[in-house]
Amino acid sequence: MEETVVKRIGINRLVDKVCSPEEAAALIQNGNIVGMSGFTRAGDAKVVPLALAERVKSEALKIDVYTGASLGPEVDQVLAQAGGIRKRGPYQGDPAIRNLINTGEVLYVDAHLSHNAELVRQGIIGPIDFAIIEATAITSDGLLVPTTSVGNSPIYAKYAKNIIVELNLAHSESFVGVHDIYIPEDQGERKPIPILKPVDRIGDIGIKIDTEKIIAIVVSNEKDAPSLIVDPDDETQEMAEHLLNFLRSEIRAGRLTNKLAPLQSGVGSVANAVLEGFKDSEFEDLVIFSEVLQDAVFNLIDAGKVSFASCTSITISEDLQKKVYGNIENYADKIIIRPQEISNHPEVIRRLGLIAINAALEVDIYGNVNSTHVGGTKMMNGIGGSGDFTRNSRLSIFVTKSYAKGGKLSSIVPMVAHHDHTEHDVHVIVTEQGVADLRGLAPKERVPLIIENCVHPDFKQQLWDYYHESVALTGNAHTPHNMEKALSWHVSAAKSGTMKM
Amino acid sequence: MEETVVKRIGINRLVDKVCSPEEAAALIQNGNIVGMSGFTRAGDAKVVPLALAERVKSEALKIDVYTGASLGPEVDQVLAQAGGIRKRGPYQGDPAIRNLINTGEVLYVDAHLSHNAELVRQGIIGPIDFAIIEATAITSDGLLVPTTSVGNSPIYAKYAKNIIVELNLAHSESFVGVHDIYIPEDQGERKPIPILKPVDRIGDIGIKIDTEKIIAIVVSNEKDAPSLIVDPDDETQEMAEHLLNFLRSEIRAGRLTNKLAPLQSGVGSVANAVLEGFKDSEFEDLVIFSEVLQDAVFNLIDAGKVSFASCTSITISEDLQKKVYGNIENYADKIIIRPQEISNHPEVIRRLGLIAINAALEVDIYGNVNSTHVGGTKMMNGIGGSGDFTRNSRLSIFVTKSYAKGGKLSSIVPMVAHHDHTEHDVHVIVTEQGVADLRGLAPKERVPLIIENCVHPDFKQQLWDYYHESVALTGNAHTPHNMEKALSWHVSAAKSGTMKM
Ligand SMILES: CC(C)(COP(=O)(O)OP(=O)(O)OC[C@H]1O[C@@H](n2cnc3c(N)ncnc32)[C@H](O)[C@@H]1OP(=O)(O)O)[C@@H](O)C(=O)NCCC(=O)NCCS
Ligand SMILES: CC(C)(COP(=O)(O)OP(=O)(O)OC[C@H]1O[C@@H](n2cnc3c(N)ncnc32)[C@H](O)[C@@H]1OP(=O)(O)O)[C@@H](O)C(=O)NCCC(=O)NCCS
Repeated sequence: MEETVVKRIGINRLVDKVCSPEEAAALIQNGNIVGMSGFTRAGDAKVVPLALAERVKSEALKIDVYTGASLGPEVDQVLAQAGGIRKRGPYQGDPAIRNLINTGEVLYVDAHLSHNAELVRQGIIGPIDFAIIEATAITSDGLLVPTTSVGNSPIYAKYAKNIIVELNLAHSESFVGVHDIYIPEDQGERKPIPILKPVDRIGDIGIKIDTEKIIAIVVSNEKDAPSLIVDPDDETQEMAEHLLNFLRSEIRAGRLTNKLAPLQSGVGSVANAVLEGFKDSEFEDLVIFSEVLQDAVFNLIDAGKVSFASCTSITISEDLQKKVYGNIENYADKIIIRPQEISNHPEVIRRLGLIAINAALEVDIYGNVNSTHVGGTKMMNGIGGSGDFTRNSRLSIFVTKSYAKGGKLSSIVPMVAHHDHTEHDVHVIVTEQGVADLRGLAPKERVPLIIENCVHPDFKQQLWDYYHESVALTGNAHTPHNMEKALSWHVSAAKSGTMKM
Repeated sequence: MEETVVKRIGINRLVDKVCSPEEAAALIQNGNIVGMSGFTRAGDAKVVPLALAERVKSEALKIDVYTGASLGPEVDQVLAQAGGIRKRGPYQGDPAIRNLINTGEVLYVDAHLSHNAELVRQGIIGPIDFAIIEATAITSDGLLVPTTSVGNSPIYAKYAKNIIVELNLAHSESFVGVHDIYIPEDQGERKPIPILKPVDRIGDIGIKIDTEKIIAIVVSNEKDAPSLIVDPDDETQEMAEHLLNFLRSEIRAGRLTNKLAPLQSGVGSVANAVLEGFKDSEFEDLVIFSEVLQDAVFNLIDAGKVSFASCTSITISEDLQKKVYGNIENYADKIIIRPQEISNHPEVIRRLGLIAINAALEVDIYGNVNSTHVGGTKMMNGIGGSGDFTRNSRLSIFVTKSYAKGGKLSSIVPMVAHHDHTEHDVHVIVTEQGVADLRGLAPKERVPLIIENCVHPDFKQQLWDYYHESVALTGNAHTPHNMEKALSWHVSAAKSGTMKM
């Protein structure tokens, strides 16, 4: 066996557990419930799932897969397309499994990412047969050190009957010390989570496990699938500029200083592009308390704008992977990777008073947000942590281009076709057209701000028409709607591909 | 001046501030923003608002009124109907102001009750010109002791430019000591809220105020408007039985003991009736950590079932008022009244692991809940604390009769016409028909449980038809819907008064 493998397995007797991916995959039975590491394509188990997918080709075998969040192609493409997944939660983002979810072949449970650990504790998710967890190392005191994400690994490792470790040599041992693993006590016996500042370390550098449960260790050497986000464009730069101007107005109002407040930024190209906008701004000494660190955060660290970033996962492009993971020592004192139960915990989010920036698929004239369902029926990715952050932050901002599909669809509609975030939780909407600050406003006060500031010119009149008709129809009720037409824009889009009517 | 008044004003120089309601009301200017005590008709300012309503009859005068939650008739009926309210938040429950909200005469901002204090800190609600606060007493060390509710009084008193006190002699001085006032630090400097058990006292017996800001003290002697809930009926008793059976199954599953977990129970007749059901159950040593204590809680205390209850407000019927407030000493060691920011705080709710029981207007086949908008446009009361509890509890249960308006409307619909709680947050639905436990299920797994267990027989087939058509139409998408018909039941109800089609 390679010396470096032995070195990374700090407990001697565990070296015997090293086996091939096929041998590990052979342990898994049809119908098993499997908790896996991995969060937005980072730190996911890679080689065991591939070996499992091989088995599925010739065997009737389906498992339930719960993770931190979305995974790379090994599970959500290869295993899923082979027919190996019965049920999936709590988040995904791969076109392959998305398609299977939207044709009824895979069951999917979309959930707030901070809720999962609680459901595992209660046994609602479970009993967990296997935890498959990618690790950098096992320390001599029995800590399992994750790689580029922590996600739900601690809770799966704690509750699983068996643990399969994927020891990934592609990650430098310098990752040891970057993580901070803290598992809250059971409800009823629980203490406050002692994070007072984003930089606070409150736990261990690895996951305390019952090493007796380690049934197999598989060695791998695979990089994370790189992030899929696309580069900023003119319009996302306009959105960034609108956002920065809004934050400037908050400073003028005395609500923020130019250090702002800990920032959370959501997944996807738009949220990343908007964050990039801080690079050339006057804001400084920024701190991130987020779920996923995408490219923008590292660019901001390099630019000296961000002094510290707390997350549960690092999901970056290929070039940035080389730079960051090749020199993780340079970033180690500026980063903490935490369990998602902590990165997304309402207690911590509300205490710290975050500024949350998440992307929406569509919003409506009253400020409700659809983050998940295209056309109200087809699952895109999932709600992820957007609800955890949106509900509890000091400022919850949603960004979206005002239109989609080349201008045929308006991203601002009479009524969203699926509700992920209700009017009560959405403070500010930013599109390339402008900003609507909805805080403290009644529904009818929000309408002109949203239509005039955020809607694409092609759809403004059509939205005003809908609204005025609804006011007349309902006798100016609290939330005027015309139930016959509230979803008619989506009907039109489904039938003729356009919301222009 | 009456001796008892002087005795209740612990700071001598403040006795000079005693004046008539008219004199106090005369201080308020057109356009002022006023923060008032009062939460679900309890502990609200009564005589100053009435005097203000008199002024409004002959003067152009409108104010913005923010409270804890709903008030008695003095504000939400008399002042509102006189035209004295421009804007109202964060909750109301009176037919008079409801009507004005639904005809566009009063602006209403519906909000999570735990969010208000934060908005005041940020100045989004504000600047607050006056806090009008009903009190039992002012202590010699400058604490303002509330009466039957605390609500948002501490934060309004802290941020208001001026404070008007309504010293209500109708409340026994024995109320001193029942409250526990704790105001979290500003975000960024905030410490954990140190409640580890519902019984924990963490603050002061009254609101620390800058006594210089007390501009007027008005003496009153008015009881709270009694609660309006109606008695349990056969169907709510069936709902209670279903709920208890569900909890029994949770005990069998090892998730609860027969002491259950701290209970929260929502406002309204249905939630109260369901809680009454615990009286003849085998559960014991129950603890309540809730927002409002309605009649049921006191009946359970008297029956020896509930050992302790934490709340932000006590809203009880006339008979029970006599019994409880006449003998508050007997209950004082079993009750704490807290600020609503604390009773409803996500941090505390998730730490304690509550069982939340709230009432819904309607739910849909995927588990989304409408708590607020009749027919999707007319505001009923507001979301209140239901979101705070539902999102963060160990178990979040919604109760509703399966039908409304004598059976013409189904309370389970294809798509709710307004979303207050999304599918991600709703664990269990209880109607008089039965229980649907939705935890851990994908949307399409929830549908048969909801339709078969919860829907009234009159509407079952119609819902199945909708669902099957939607599955076919969307190619079995993640959340099958027919956007043309999703709200058609509400269209039918608005046009012909019935959802039977
Ligand atoms: C909402 C979300 C999908 C946006 O992602 P994004 O990459 O920034 O957005 P894009 O504008 O590139 O849109 C992604 C896709 O949605 C489509 N889309 C966007 N708006 C749409 C709309 N109003 N109607 C229909 N489709 C729309 C785009 O056309 C694009 O489709 P394609 O992949 O077929 O090209 C993504 O942020 C997400 O999944 N959010 C939910 C989870 C979350 O917020 N997590 C953060 C917590 S930390
Ligand atoms: C939802 C809520 C209105 C139910 O109140 P309730 O008193 O238990 O319920 P009822 O069944 O008596 O219904 C109240 C009214 O709504 C009507 N209603 C109930 N279901 C309806 C439906 N599906 N469609 C239309 N109207 C409906 C009833 O007919 C009744 O109308 P009426 O006053 O004209 O007779 C009430 O619980 C509420 O306001 N909840 C939101 C706030 C909250 O949950 N706070 C708790 C946090 S601690």
